[in-house]
Amino acid sequence: MKNKIGTLNALYPLPTVLVGTVINGKPNYITMAHVGVLKANIVCMGMAKVHFSGHGIIENKTFSINVPSTKQTVVTDYCGVVSGKNTDKSELFTSFYGVMKTAPMIEEFAVNMECKLIDHLDYGSHDIFIGEIVNTFCDDSVLTDGQIDLKKIDPILFDMNTRKYWQLGDSYAKAWSIGKTHPKF
Amino acid sequence: MKNKIGTLNALYPLPTVLVGTVINGKPNYITMAHVGVLKANIVCMGMAKVHFSGHGIIENKTFSINVPSTKQTVVTDYCGVVSGKNTDKSELFTSFYGVMKTAPMIEEFAVNMECKLIDHLDYGSHDIFIGEIVNTFCDDSVLTDGQIDLKKIDPILFDMNTRKYWQLGDSYAKAWSIGKTHPKF
Repeated sequence: MKNKIGTLNALYPLPTVLVGTVINGKPNYITMAHVGVLKANIVCMGMAKVHFSGHGIIENKTFSINVPSTKQTVVTDYCGVVSGKNTDKSELFTSFYGVMKTAPMIEEFAVNMECKLIDHLDYGSHDIFIGEIVNTFCDDSVLTDGQIDLKKIDPILFDMNTRKYWQLGDSYAKAWSIGKTHPKF
Repeated sequence: MKNKIGTLNALYPLPTVLVGTVINGKPNYITMAHVGVLKANIVCMGMAKVHFSGHGIIENKTFSINVPSTKQTVVTDYCGVVSGKNTDKSELFTSFYGVMKTAPMIEEFAVNMECKLIDHLDYGSHDIFIGEIVNTFCDDSVLTDGQIDLKKIDPILFDMNTRKYWQLGDSYAKAWSIGKTHPKF
């Protein structure tokens, strides 16, 4: 028996990240989980227009995505409860830059992606930003045999409906592989 | 010390779902993880044009998102290793419909979202589909106090880079709340 529960979005959990921009000459960081993958190095993001960060992204046509670990939950959530409009968040982290000088990245977070804005859609209350990753950076500490290891990242997974953060559990199967054990295969 | 690792997309894990369409009068389901949230009831999805499902979405301007549990990993992955071009996947599940008759949903999966296509971008190798959720359905089994409980869904989390499926761990903090314990707050 199915319950009809309105138009609730149940596509969770999603990884929580800090999106970096430069506004008024200073790095600013905003907490986001509505960032998704469209194809290999193309990402999309839906950002409410009330946020300060959108102005920086529209002006500079760049942004960064910085992936924290659960140990960095307090500072990550803090960046979502205060606005860059009235709080200087530039001193919270050591910022570094790749090829673009308006996509500040967070040294203390293990994974960083430098992005160029390639599309911008106006969805009323929200800007939809589509970006191309031009450089990815990571710490040695999250690599296993040269590959990024999710368990070592220990990402902060977010559920909008209950407003809770979740940890990642264990890896248990190979994709494009376990399906071959289906009786119809 | 940061390693530069090309333009790798490290925005994982993402929830694995089956996207439903009707093609040639029959339900078809494809495994997807590149489905994201743009705002409340708006989702986006990047789908390689080689897939059969895109034709159904473009023709009908509808699709569904069906959320499996880890217990359904074999059939979920199976839908990603065989193509609707030459395999009839309509008999794998009991399909049901909401208000639209071309967005088949999977009875056996605990959460289902019926979506209307509202935007379609051409990104070369990929179609970008943007949809509005018009109805969400869920089983009693995943509700706690009337709210969808991620632990009860037990979603299949996907990492593209290592091609592994992961389980959800535990909930450990409240969003928009734990950040208020930061010394700068």
